[in-house]
Amino acid sequence: MNNDLKRLALHVLTDRTLSLGRDMLTVAAAALDGGATVIQLRDKTASTRLLIEEAVALRALTRERGALLIVNDRIDVALAVDADGAHVGQDDMPAALARQLLGPERILGVSAGNLEEAAEAVIAGADYLGVGPIYATASKADAGQPQGTVLLSQLASRHALPLIAIGGINIANTREVIQAGATGIAVISAVVSAPDITAATHDLRQIVLAELYGHERGS
Amino acid sequence: MNNDLKRLALHVLTDRTLSLGRDMLTVAAAALDGGATVIQLRDKTASTRLLIEEAVALRALTRERGALLIVNDRIDVALAVDADGAHVGQDDMPAALARQLLGPERILGVSAGNLEEAAEAVIAGADYLGVGPIYATASKADAGQPQGTVLLSQLASRHALPLIAIGGINIANTREVIQAGATGIAVISAVVSAPDITAATHDLRQIVLAELYGHERGS
Repeated sequence: MNNDLKRLALHVLTDRTLSLGRDMLTVAAAALDGGATVIQLRDKTASTRLLIEEAVALRALTRERGALLIVNDRIDVALAVDADGAHVGQDDMPAALARQLLGPERILGVSAGNLEEAAEAVIAGADYLGVGPIYATASKADAGQPQGTVLLSQLASRHALPLIAIGGINIANTREVIQAGATGIAVISAVVSAPDITAATHDLRQIVLAELYGHERGS
Repeated sequence: MNNDLKRLALHVLTDRTLSLGRDMLTVAAAALDGGATVIQLRDKTASTRLLIEEAVALRALTRERGALLIVNDRIDVALAVDADGAHVGQDDMPAALARQLLGPERILGVSAGNLEEAAEAVIAGADYLGVGPIYATASKADAGQPQGTVLLSQLASRHALPLIAIGGINIANTREVIQAGATGIAVISAVVSAPDITAATHDLRQIVLAELYGHERGS
């Protein structure tokens, strides 16, 4: 079993507006209880000051739980709080610049919505690709056209790095994206909007790990 | 004549909405023609990708003209384009963290709206203070209560670092803020909204330098 892959199996992205009024730290803690392996701090509306405060709190929480903290877009915030890495989309800092600022050790995730973006991201030094949107999603206004699972299959045959499916991923389609070639999933509303965040996370995790590694004992 | 002080004498902040439809590079070039010593890239609505593009263009322009480029808020962007420094406000990254990421060589400017914020900024390693808002301003929605020139006088008697007056600074009150203790001014609308940006900048510069150093020959 590839431990690095496993650490990237289940990304939960924070979202201020979709969390049914629950605060970010409560949501993240519940997701970690359910077995999220990565918390990605994504907050496009916060001031940098607030973002730093959120990141500091999530850094302590994820460290305590042995999970990864990845900061969306903001390389400065990732560096300031000693996050494990950063994730950049196509509207964020170009991946090669992000890699340069992050250094070789931190994790760099890059969003790819087609084969060309994926190839560029790999050359720029991405550690994993966020592939999508796979399905239609209401969680990200700027997500672009759904690609379906075919993009995952194409990328899995071309690239060896972890492929994290994102965009409309939920309990009903997780098996399908892993079977298509994803090595993990990233979710927003499937977890943060769930009435029972811990249970929702746990159920997603079970499917991902079962598909990737066969059924786990005692997890 | 203190050359470092002189380099910080006249900051022009970019503003997308106040520039009467003229693009950022055109505005900056005209301001540099008029003798702006610092261009501060401030764009709170751009994506990081666009911000990087703007910063790259302003970096080339300011280097060519021998002026400084300072990036507002975004330490990551400042580092990515090799800007001369960054400016952080009270809603941005805490100054001590900003200093840590910028390293000892780059310029760190910090906004201070009262004596306490100023003292903290100095301890955190600020190279200059942005002091204000001195007067009422419509250019920054979050600028806070006008402080008048008294804050400048108080700070000038306590701190040796450059004090840059900001907030409602224009041709009519520049003399007064320099006489009160400012060593430079930062303007938005007084330059970027002027019909003749170069002339407006030149006139402000003449007043600042005349008050600081006596009338210059040939400038």
